This record gives sequence, C-alpha cells and structure tokens, in this order.
Amino acid sequence: MRGVLTDLLGIEYPILLAPMGNVSGGALAAAVSNAGGLGLIGAGYGDADWLDREFQNAGEARIGVGFITWALERNPTLLDQALEYEPEAVMFSFGDYLPFLAKVRDAGAKVICQVQTRLQAREAAAAGVDLIVAQGTEGGGHGGTRATLSLVPAVVDAVAPTPVIAAGGIADGRGLAAVHMLGAAGALIGTRFFASEGALGSANAKRFILESRGDSTLRTRVFDIVRDYPWPTHITGRVPMNRFCAQWHGHEEGLSADLARQQVIYRRAEQAADTDTAVVFAGEAVDLIDTVEPAAHIVTRVAREADALMGA
Amino acid sequence: MRGVLTDLLGIEYPILLAPMGNVSGGALAAAVSNAGGLGLIGAGYGDADWLDREFQNAGEARIGVGFITWALERNPTLLDQALEYEPEAVMFSFGDYLPFLAKVRDAGAKVICQVQTRLQAREAAAAGVDLIVAQGTEGGGHGGTRATLSLVPAVVDAVAPTPVIAAGGIADGRGLAAVHMLGAAGALIGTRFFASEGALGSANAKRFILESRGDSTLRTRVFDIVRDYPWPTHITGRVPMNRFCAQWHGHEEGLSADLARQQVIYRRAEQAADTDTAVVFAGEAVDLIDTVEPAAHIVTRVAREADALMGA
Repeated sequence: MRGVLTDLLGIEYPILLAPMGNVSGGALAAAVSNAGGLGLIGAGYGDADWLDREFQNAGEARIGVGFITWALERNPTLLDQALEYEPEAVMFSFGDYLPFLAKVRDAGAKVICQVQTRLQAREAAAAGVDLIVAQGTEGGGHGGTRATLSLVPAVVDAVAPTPVIAAGGIADGRGLAAVHMLGAAGALIGTRFFASEGALGSANAKRFILESRGDSTLRTRVFDIVRDYPWPTHITGRVPMNRFCAQWHGHEEGLSADLARQQVIYRRAEQAADTDTAVVFAGEAVDLIDTVEPAAHIVTRVAREADALMGA
Repeated sequence: MRGVLTDLLGIEYPILLAPMGNVSGGALAAAVSNAGGLGLIGAGYGDADWLDREFQNAGEARIGVGFITWALERNPTLLDQALEYEPEAVMFSFGDYLPFLAKVRDAGAKVICQVQTRLQAREAAAAGVDLIVAQGTEGGGHGGTRATLSLVPAVVDAVAPTPVIAAGGIADGRGLAAVHMLGAAGALIGTRFFASEGALGSANAKRFILESRGDSTLRTRVFDIVRDYPWPTHITGRVPMNRFCAQWHGHEEGLSADLARQQVIYRRAEQAADTDTAVVFAGEAVDLIDTVEPAAHIVTRVAREADALMGA
C-alpha cells in the first residue's frame, strides 16, 4: 500500500480522515494521524473559535484541514487562521478554490482538491493541485452523482500523474484494497470514523450509524433547507433516512413554506441529539460498521485488511 | 481469479456477459463463453421468435439467458422455450422470480438473481438461488440507487456463503480486481461488451458509447415512457444524455401529454439508429471504453489485467 501518497504526505498508511464538519475535530484528526494516516479537521461552515479550538485540540500531531470552499469564500480569513497552525495539507471541496491556492502553497502545505466528476478532476490537475480526491455518490454528507467504482479509474486516467485518492463507500480493508486496484493512491474515509470514539458528534448519532442500513440512505436537500445553508442544488447530502427526512424529502417546497416553524422544531432536536429529526450525515457503507471504537484501531485494521487482501 | 464462480459454472474466467436486451444476442453470448466467460442472452421484453433465433445463433456454445422478470410474468411460456435449449444458467432481474425457480432447477440450470439492495439479496439467498448479482447504480440500463463499491461487500456479508457477482461500473481489469477485493466471486459486464463486434445494436450506438463520458450519464424514465414499458418507477435506466433525454428528463408529464406524437418521432429515430433521439443504454464506465473490438479480446484482456493487478 505504500507509495506515492505515503511518500507525499509522510504518512505510514494511505488513509485520510474526511474533514467532516462538526465531527472531525482536533482529537479525531490527531488520532488518525498518530495511528499512521492523515487526519483532516473539518472547518465546516466556518466558525473561527471552533477552528482555533480544534487545531489546539490536535496538539502536536501533523494534521490537515478541509474547507467547504463556498463557505470559505464568505469568510476567507479562516484560511489565514488555519495556515498559522502550519497544516500538512489543505483540502478544498465544493467551490472555486483557485483564489486560495497560492496562499496554501506559500505556506508550504499540500493542496488537496475534492471533485465529483471527471471534468472537475481535469480542471484541478490543470490548476496543479497536489492531490485529487475523487468522491463517489455513495459517500455520506455532501456530494454528487457519480459512483466511486467507475469515477476513480476515469479520474486516474484523466489526471495522471497527479495522484488520486478515492472517497465514498470505503469503510474497511476490502474497500481500501478495491480502490487501490482502481488506481487510487489511497482512501479518504468519513462515515467509518464518525462511528469512532474520537469523533465529535453525539452518542445518539453514532448509535444511529450503527443501526442504519445502506439501503435506507439517500441524497437529500431537506437538511440544508432547514439549516438554511445555501448549497448549490446539484450538491446534496447523503443521510440514512430519519423521520424528518421522510416527512419532507420530495416535499421541499412545503418545508420552505413552513420554514420558521420547522426550524424551531429542528433546532430543538439538534440540541437534544434527537436523530429522528436532527441530521446524521453517513454513507452507504453504514452496512459495514457495527462498532464504535478508537479511530486508531480503525486505521490499523483497515490498512492490515487491505494489505492481507493484496497479499502484501 | 479462479474459484467458486468458475467451478460452479465450469468457466475459465469469472466474467459474465450482462443479458442486455437487443444487444446480448446469441453471437455475443457465444463469443464470451467461447473466450472463457459465460455469455447470457438478453430475453428483454419477450419476443419468442427473437429468442429462438438468438439461441440458435449461439450454436453449440454453453450459454445462459437473462429475463426481465416482470416481462416474463406477462409471457411465462418464454421460460419453457428457453429451457428447451438447456441453458447453463437463467438470470432473473426486476420482479418476482419465486414462481419460476422450480422449473429452472428441474431443468438443471443454475439460478442467478440480480438485486439492487441488500434486503433483496437476503431474500434471494433465503430462496436458495445459486448466485446473486449485486448491481450498482453506475451500471448502464435499468437499475436502482445503491452503488457497487458499498453494495457488494454488504451483500457478501449478508448472504454468505452464497456467491456474489458484482455488476455496475466494471469495464476493465481494474474493475474486476476491485470487486474481487470486495469479496465478489466475479463480475457481470454490460456496457463494455455493448461496444464489441459481437453485440447487436447499431454502429451508431456503439460509436455513441465511445464518444460518451461518464459525467453525462444519468438515470431516467424518459425512454420507458416513450417506449411504453411499464417499469416500476423506482427502477430507472442509465443512459448517456442525448437530445431527446435532455428535452424530456424532468418534464416527464409533458412527454406523457404529447405521447402519441413523440412516439412517432421516437420510432422513426430508432429505425434510423439516430442516437440523438433513440436510447443507448450505457453506464458510467463509458469513460474506460475507447474501442469497438471482438468480445473475446475483452474477456481475455480484462481477466489478464485483473490477474496482473492481483499479482497472480
């Protein structure tokens, strides 16, 4: 499994923590890095105090940070703030990252760009990013429509020699070995690390992941509408269906029409960690997740399973 | 790569031809079987004369046949007709296959059941089918919403020891090796074989596949509406976008309202092999397909590429 990615990032295993907003904090990122992968803090929608706190929670670990690019555009000083912590890498997803590249490079951090299509991958390679994450639709949280198995080799062919990391649907060594066969240099893993002891997020949310099935996940805009986040409409969030989603998915206009009242209900549920209403972003790979365990165990088990499958 | 699937079906390579309606005829099925895989004729919507002709076109090759189960329900004697040719295997997709199982078993053929969810896979295993095809949404033609990379290991875990074949998004040795890592016993391949010399279908359709990109494929009901096929609404067909699809996708009610006129236009385009209007079912893996070549070359190249990647 060792190769271009482990060399480029100075890590032992080609496993990156997805920068999940409000989930991938400093403790989780540090745990993944200290176990031999690379942890990325999720800057999410851009709370400066949160970002400071989580970088500090990571201690001395070599970590990176991931931005929702359109949110960073609204609050660009967050990038300067993050670069003060000398992250190993900065990842951009969902938006125009070009204005930020020079600053990241000048700070000596690697640039990672997450894409959902082959065309976006070509653009990122042309921009000279260091690493491209090809994200399949089966992944949890926000993403597009193409699936990992056919997107990854298409991106690998389109951007060579830029290294490609696969994301979406990977939760165990089988998935890591599979994307390696597709030509990926490694895997970016989200949902599996959400269900770990180091992750932020409620115990209810982690239990909800264990109890969910891939068959019941779907891509929806419901939670972006109720939370009032201006995501592009072609980017949706994958969640395991819950009661609130069942009520409003396909009835988004009704939700918008009743928004003030539904937001009160929703915020109350968030505070109570009530997963019947509050969102838990998670991907189709929930089928493969049965335990909440330390992130370090996940890193080493996934790497060892993949090595064993590939006969290393 | 050899193992449970090659033993069970008496084949050399764990590669099955998807039974694509009007594409997977006897010549293509025989070419895949003679090259060491297993070819499946696509019985499609059920034309008895077509089925006789294509079984006869397969000559002495050991092949199988695949049914759209809800279409077979409307014309069940097609199964008796097919079994007279002593197929190696009978595959069922999209419908209630339980009433047909005893007849297939009595004829000594293997039962293959294609599913789109983990739950359907458990039901098929409980019914005692010989093989389960776990079909991901990235595949061409009719299918569901779950993606191959996370569906396959979930199905493998759910139905063990029933062997699982992966379908959807596999067009080269990387894909075959990848699904092997996921625990699949082999791969069912469609789009790659559509772009082969043995496939039925027009030269225009094959050229359209070569020119299409995975980014432009989508799942749609447009072509089922204009062709007047009563597919369940949750099963859609993946196609590379063409002009007719761009005109009506998202405007299905308008298409239904103007159906008689649009059907005249559509049938004329079908007869002219005009791929601006007529459907070409193909999956996201079109990115990986650059040539129309003999099916036998595809079988051996995919198998050898996969063997090389897995260090065999």
